[in-house]
Amino acid sequence: MTTRAARLDLESITPAEYRARVDRARAEMERADIDTLLITSEANFSYFSGLRSQAWASPTRPMFLLIPANREPIAIVPAGSRVVMQTGSWLTELRTWSAPNPADDGVTLLIEALHQCSGRSGRIGGEFGPENQLRMPIVDFWRVQEAIHPAKFVDASAITRRIRLVKSPAEIERIRAAAQILSSGFERLSSTLESGLSERDACLDLQLDLLSRGMDRITYMVAASGPSGYATINSNPSDRLLKEGDVLIIDTAAPVDGYYCDFDRNYAFGSPEDATRRAFDRAFAATDAGIDAALAGARACDVWQAMARVLGTGSNERTDVGRMGHGIGLNMTEPPSIHPADQTLLEAGMVLAIEPGTAFRTAAGRQVVMVHEENILITEGRAVLLSRRAADQIPVIGDV
Amino acid sequence: MTTRAARLDLESITPAEYRARVDRARAEMERADIDTLLITSEANFSYFSGLRSQAWASPTRPMFLLIPANREPIAIVPAGSRVVMQTGSWLTELRTWSAPNPADDGVTLLIEALHQCSGRSGRIGGEFGPENQLRMPIVDFWRVQEAIHPAKFVDASAITRRIRLVKSPAEIERIRAAAQILSSGFERLSSTLESGLSERDACLDLQLDLLSRGMDRITYMVAASGPSGYATINSNPSDRLLKEGDVLIIDTAAPVDGYYCDFDRNYAFGSPEDATRRAFDRAFAATDAGIDAALAGARACDVWQAMARVLGTGSNERTDVGRMGHGIGLNMTEPPSIHPADQTLLEAGMVLAIEPGTAFRTAAGRQVVMVHEENILITEGRAVLLSRRAADQIPVIGDV
Repeated sequence: MTTRAARLDLESITPAEYRARVDRARAEMERADIDTLLITSEANFSYFSGLRSQAWASPTRPMFLLIPANREPIAIVPAGSRVVMQTGSWLTELRTWSAPNPADDGVTLLIEALHQCSGRSGRIGGEFGPENQLRMPIVDFWRVQEAIHPAKFVDASAITRRIRLVKSPAEIERIRAAAQILSSGFERLSSTLESGLSERDACLDLQLDLLSRGMDRITYMVAASGPSGYATINSNPSDRLLKEGDVLIIDTAAPVDGYYCDFDRNYAFGSPEDATRRAFDRAFAATDAGIDAALAGARACDVWQAMARVLGTGSNERTDVGRMGHGIGLNMTEPPSIHPADQTLLEAGMVLAIEPGTAFRTAAGRQVVMVHEENILITEGRAVLLSRRAADQIPVIGDV
Repeated sequence: MTTRAARLDLESITPAEYRARVDRARAEMERADIDTLLITSEANFSYFSGLRSQAWASPTRPMFLLIPANREPIAIVPAGSRVVMQTGSWLTELRTWSAPNPADDGVTLLIEALHQCSGRSGRIGGEFGPENQLRMPIVDFWRVQEAIHPAKFVDASAITRRIRLVKSPAEIERIRAAAQILSSGFERLSSTLESGLSERDACLDLQLDLLSRGMDRITYMVAASGPSGYATINSNPSDRLLKEGDVLIIDTAAPVDGYYCDFDRNYAFGSPEDATRRAFDRAFAATDAGIDAALAGARACDVWQAMARVLGTGSNERTDVGRMGHGIGLNMTEPPSIHPADQTLLEAGMVLAIEPGTAFRTAAGRQVVMVHEENILITEGRAVLLSRRAADQIPVIGDV
């Protein structure tokens, strides 16, 4: 065994920080007239409880967290997660059941706890809005809905959205660690790539390197390649062999202690044609413009506009990505969207992926795209890079 | 770059097979008086469409598949997934929108398509039951529910449950490929493990090996260790250093072309104490009993009873795992459960993880558990191993 797991020596996230997160949620709950917040998703459960568990990878067992206005949070989890909750979470009120139990997978416990938390408004907030899913069976949700009547469920996803937008120093440290690892991996890859490798070979090489450097896991790694450009960025790495004239993109999202970085890099095999160079230059310049525009007090849509001005009209629509960046954190993509319709005000502490793209036609007439991406931290001054900025020329692999 | 990605040369899953899956769903829909099936989850979308996409890793964009009784299936996906659907799915009716769009993330397209699919019963089936989650925002689901009135949503998770229970030869080939890779990885690990490594070192070594051998990714890898035994099996690998007298368990689920294997292995550092040996023997013998009992025509609960008889009263409750095995396939855990309450009749073609556990007390008085696991295929005769059976003695690492 030659490779040892890297130790990243991160500062622990303190119980005081978790308690402050709960307190922020409670302040928002009071404004929204909500008695109790029901959490079922991995990211929000992790955000409030501190739990890092792989149990979420299986769809079989739900986990519930209640944040009541006027008492301590209550975690309701399968008995198999009792030990990891006791060792990995600051929460003290823990209720468990033997799971799976399709006849009653925590439902009775959940109803009982909701009754105990019942408050003045009779409104229970759930993760019901955009970019959220309810991680429990709908038939169980219907049973709970009926049992708590006249109390009712209302959408409270704006609360978790809002309080998770601004990251703490401990959260930023984790995203930065992930982004630095990925930067190192991409930089190393430019020296190990060569013609004759497949997209899968290239991705495997990068994966092994990233895991050795301390990533929790590789959640997302897509790749695409083709002569002078690629048609999409959302595809699994294939057995296609890379050759002179190709452009390869790899886009990866991976976490450190649960917190994601997410960015891509492009590689040219041999000296790229002019159209490719010009597209890279536009995407690179647009990224610069996006970073420059990402100031506290600006809106997410302002960042989009700054990039769109560099790219020219319509270029983003033609890449099909649907936006030019997004938040990152406990999810690999989270609010806000760098999109013309997103009015979110940027604040110091937000972390964004800046991801402009441009469509172009190669000399041979293929319609392709060029996407570029960096991860940044919004500050009181200029935004700070969390990834290491790509070189301002597309890296060229092999003899030129 | 020294490691190249392994090519597994799997037979493609044919359009005819996908069509047969749709036809089986339709037969069940007719019996259940359901006009249209609404699919939102990765596993079911993949099951019917053939799509293998990493886009599911982000919670931002939903994807919808409608299986109507009387017309071709309709896929409604973000524009960014158009190319991967065109190249990776046999489906021809594809509708897209520019996503994300929080104001209308496919909702209008979904409502329109549901109207076009409207049938006699006015009943639309959804993935609402146990082990299922609805992968779209609840507020969007409520909008659709209102728009389709007087048609209504009913739970149809029994349909996808039933037709996915029995695997095709192509599905079995993939699960077997995954299980063989994991067997090789675990076997190799017994020669690379040594005292002084951490749980994380051991898991990293296994991960790098499994990825090199061709796993799609490592979805789930938990580890636990301790003197003569471990207290839980559901924890992330830690920086704890392995030493003489320890028992280490690693439990992993990972897919090949989307299909999972899921099993564990135990390792003893130095000659284990008697209590540990006896617990391993019990868990091993229980696994044998479970495999012997896993006959077509038996029920899932019969397999549980056969293992419980070997383990003695109450042992499974004390492990907190909640059952002694489960189905595997496009999900790392899926029906049935090897549980006293699960009456599912076993049929040839089902694939199961057989996973008995036993609690015991070490000589030093620690309360610990021993869990063992294999993956098997139900046939018309005796069950066939898909994993390579563990040795009948716990592997001993280092000098003894």
